[in-house]
Amino acid sequence: MLKGIAASDGIAAAKAYMLVQPDLSFSEASIDDPEAEVKRLEKAVSAAKDELKIIKEKAAANLGAEEAEVFEAHLTILSDPELMGNINNKIRDEKVNAEKALKDVTDTFIAMFEGMTDNAYMQERAGDIRDVTKRVLSHLLGVTLPNPALIDEEVVIVAHDLTPSDTAQLDRKYVKGFITDIGGRTSHSAIMSRTLEIPAIVGSGSATTTISEGQTVIIDGIEGNALVDPSSDELKSYAEKADAFAKQKAEWKELKDAKTTTADGKNFTLGANIGTPKDVEGANDNGAEAVGLFRSEFLYMDASELPSEDDQFEAYKQAVEGMNGKQVVVRTMDIGGDKELPYLPLPEEMNPFLGYRAIRISLDRQDIFRTQLRALLRASNYGTLAIMFPMIATVKEFKEAKAIFEEEKEKLIKKGVSVANDIEVGMMMEIPAAAMIADKLAKYSDFFSIGTNDLIQYSMAADRGNERVSYLYQPYNPSILRLVKNIIDSSHREGKWTGMCGEMAGDQIAVPILAGLGLDEFSMSATSILKTRSLMKKIDTTKMQELAEKAVNDCETTEEVIELVKQYTK
Amino acid sequence: MLKGIAASDGIAAAKAYMLVQPDLSFSEASIDDPEAEVKRLEKAVSAAKDELKIIKEKAAANLGAEEAEVFEAHLTILSDPELMGNINNKIRDEKVNAEKALKDVTDTFIAMFEGMTDNAYMQERAGDIRDVTKRVLSHLLGVTLPNPALIDEEVVIVAHDLTPSDTAQLDRKYVKGFITDIGGRTSHSAIMSRTLEIPAIVGSGSATTTISEGQTVIIDGIEGNALVDPSSDELKSYAEKADAFAKQKAEWKELKDAKTTTADGKNFTLGANIGTPKDVEGANDNGAEAVGLFRSEFLYMDASELPSEDDQFEAYKQAVEGMNGKQVVVRTMDIGGDKELPYLPLPEEMNPFLGYRAIRISLDRQDIFRTQLRALLRASNYGTLAIMFPMIATVKEFKEAKAIFEEEKEKLIKKGVSVANDIEVGMMMEIPAAAMIADKLAKYSDFFSIGTNDLIQYSMAADRGNERVSYLYQPYNPSILRLVKNIIDSSHREGKWTGMCGEMAGDQIAVPILAGLGLDEFSMSATSILKTRSLMKKIDTTKMQELAEKAVNDCETTEEVIELVKQYTK
Repeated sequence: MLKGIAASDGIAAAKAYMLVQPDLSFSEASIDDPEAEVKRLEKAVSAAKDELKIIKEKAAANLGAEEAEVFEAHLTILSDPELMGNINNKIRDEKVNAEKALKDVTDTFIAMFEGMTDNAYMQERAGDIRDVTKRVLSHLLGVTLPNPALIDEEVVIVAHDLTPSDTAQLDRKYVKGFITDIGGRTSHSAIMSRTLEIPAIVGSGSATTTISEGQTVIIDGIEGNALVDPSSDELKSYAEKADAFAKQKAEWKELKDAKTTTADGKNFTLGANIGTPKDVEGANDNGAEAVGLFRSEFLYMDASELPSEDDQFEAYKQAVEGMNGKQVVVRTMDIGGDKELPYLPLPEEMNPFLGYRAIRISLDRQDIFRTQLRALLRASNYGTLAIMFPMIATVKEFKEAKAIFEEEKEKLIKKGVSVANDIEVGMMMEIPAAAMIADKLAKYSDFFSIGTNDLIQYSMAADRGNERVSYLYQPYNPSILRLVKNIIDSSHREGKWTGMCGEMAGDQIAVPILAGLGLDEFSMSATSILKTRSLMKKIDTTKMQELAEKAVNDCETTEEVIELVKQYTK
Repeated sequence: MLKGIAASDGIAAAKAYMLVQPDLSFSEASIDDPEAEVKRLEKAVSAAKDELKIIKEKAAANLGAEEAEVFEAHLTILSDPELMGNINNKIRDEKVNAEKALKDVTDTFIAMFEGMTDNAYMQERAGDIRDVTKRVLSHLLGVTLPNPALIDEEVVIVAHDLTPSDTAQLDRKYVKGFITDIGGRTSHSAIMSRTLEIPAIVGSGSATTTISEGQTVIIDGIEGNALVDPSSDELKSYAEKADAFAKQKAEWKELKDAKTTTADGKNFTLGANIGTPKDVEGANDNGAEAVGLFRSEFLYMDASELPSEDDQFEAYKQAVEGMNGKQVVVRTMDIGGDKELPYLPLPEEMNPFLGYRAIRISLDRQDIFRTQLRALLRASNYGTLAIMFPMIATVKEFKEAKAIFEEEKEKLIKKGVSVANDIEVGMMMEIPAAAMIADKLAKYSDFFSIGTNDLIQYSMAADRGNERVSYLYQPYNPSILRLVKNIIDSSHREGKWTGMCGEMAGDQIAVPILAGLGLDEFSMSATSILKTRSLMKKIDTTKMQELAEKAVNDCETTEEVIELVKQYTK
């Protein structure tokens, strides 16, 4: 049995598919017959091309034309006469083996393309050449590369980690679950698993070294356990657990149109975090009472240039209309950090998470910011729209951003454009300094939305994506709870409200404490809403207030808080 | 006139020395006479060698044998037959000009060496090849590289930024001041200027584009102003200002053996931050009442392997003895972040400041940690030694570190090694989460030392070395002051004390507030101690308490706090 972090609820059992890079190391050798070696290379290239053609077709059929394009690019590289000519020349001139000639020549091209730091397109080509080199090498060495796009039977994916490009190649029809060596609950692969509703375990430490291709693996995404080569009894017991889980899910479904009410009759709002207007459907299907976070980045990231005011307007309008009068909180552009735009070159930074991003870019590049604000203002007529600014650290920043908003609003009104009168303008609470002066910010901001992912990583000075320090990503640590309490209390003293849109808002251990602290809105992955509504039905707020008070005042560590929650909710 | 950030007190006037890289771009060209081109390259290489020999001698004479070694390495590269042979072959085979052949061949070598990620030595060679390529290119193109090691007259250095390797080449005898385009008060170049007591301005924005080689420049490191081509009146007026500054410095010197006493008779402790035992002399010369921070990193960084227990013992003993019974607070190893060790390969991290560093490494690599603790325990017999742990975020981490300390202490005592009985064991307060639970930590930690450089950058989520966001490095922001107040109050409630060892402790605007907040010990660059003692003489703590209370409770922004301090201290 393997233990890891439960990343996505559910149980699955299937054959293991090892998404692991094979060993592609080789020895340099001098050869006597260069022409034979050139032939050997040609054969490998031809095999790689055949393979790529199949992958391309499969990817186009299963995943769509866009995902298939990268393989077309790979085929083009393999047909490039300059590249191939150079490799053949090297074999002939220097009498080295094909592996060495291939590696040396492609390394030079890669270095050249990567050196073009002002040309994002050419820099990306370096990655393509690297991929193609691996594929040809695998044929020269007689080993097999994993080709996730070719999967056509039910599998459990086993990987060291899953990158966005890996997940783009996965067909949900066949991938029943996955397990990785590294990562935490907020890593890319974990978030992806919840969005796709695939049972998943991350951070197992040793999945790729323990499991072999084709072994049957049970993924228990509820407990975070994986069973390799289970007995028939074990398979049976897990099938029962899977049934029970399915039953529970069905029960949750019945809460879809219910209010979120606690055992003692208090109401809370459960919202969904969405990434595109398309996600509104899932939010409604899962009974969201609001959209607590609409990330506007997709408009900037899925494009080859800055999105126009009209394109943005359409997207915001669609989301607002889709929610039928329920509030949609749109966060203005949060680019930078780990999110880059090919058409907006940002400086290379030593610590991008502590760098030029989000509102810092918006206040600097007001052309971009004002365009977004105008699109939002125009969309405000079609439902209940609210706006919030990401990464606000100081009162000065909030006032500046708000003043720009007011200017654009005035200008539109003067032009005769109709704009809603009641747009709430708030801010993300995700920087410790802002949380410390929440009382001052609450005078200006209509609401707060606590972004726990960033708030925790900054408060702990620990990158949540860095496995060496991910143990410090502690949502229940009293230090974090105190910051959260200060934010909520400060907003209430000014008659404002506080929501939370980080992972913590849907965390079943955190929810009772947050209810006790008086958090007004919980916004989470749509797939967590019904489970949370079910949990809310069982809790008593007076008791949770007592729990929260003890957690904030008496507990010293995360472990003590978890223990306390267990006592109070059993 | 140029405005920048005053980085180091004092006035200087001298000719500008432009420490600026010339344009080394070139056009590729095919040539008709390869042999003539090979000759052209040989001439450039020979000129580069002659230049390197002179630089090497000068560097050895002015700066020491160690600094000169790098140039010997460059000479060796230029005599490498494989490298030169490859370039000549490329000129002959491909009929390209020498610039192109040089660049292509060295790029391949650089990529190869940089690819050896498990071999720090070879990776460093990549940097050497890059430097040598630049030098040969400069001769091919007929432009001149700056050679700071050759400076032999009084100058003011003008640079975009100064790297540690730049400063290693500077001779203090000739460098009277410097001005840079970028950087803030806590950038490497600014800290260096204070240590060397050279007047300096950083972050001027445009020094390198405004000033030309040889122009006379006045550096006013007190106000942060630079005057280019001053009139004789201006030169005179600045000479007077320089005199006044020298007089003030002389007055400060008289406070060397005085206590640090405020106008109303309260005492504070002013300590020095030191980097090696050699710095103890400067601490004593500047009237330090303690060493509030002894960074132990030099033991790890100036070495080719992990320092032995005995080597460490000698260094700690020397520092403790040198302070004659005054307390010396040694911070255990703070490696990681931007500090790397060639013999201790650390993982590459996307955000090193939020990564595996300091106590996180020590708790993981207990072999290293326990060796350091044993050396410290043994040195405790020779004076008043205290120990503190860097980057503590949670109660659990502190307890773990403290338990390891107690274990090593017990083991030594059992072996009959004598160990002081009164070693205080404290922690750095530099992570927001720790500051939030200072009341809990104060139960276990004998004292706190606030590391404002990190505390501010984490609280603001802004890398202080990143010029795009350095405006968020705001020591006086009410959010930071509230964290500081919480730390101090929490320690006092448990009968413990709090010091501060970041840049803020010697900041003349911050000192009155910190005195009002009841900070017990101020530890700073030795050169700031007497100035601060002089300031302390003028302030009244009751009034400063009122100031601090208003700053913490009423102010919303940094600007309001600065205004308030001015009112209270005028």
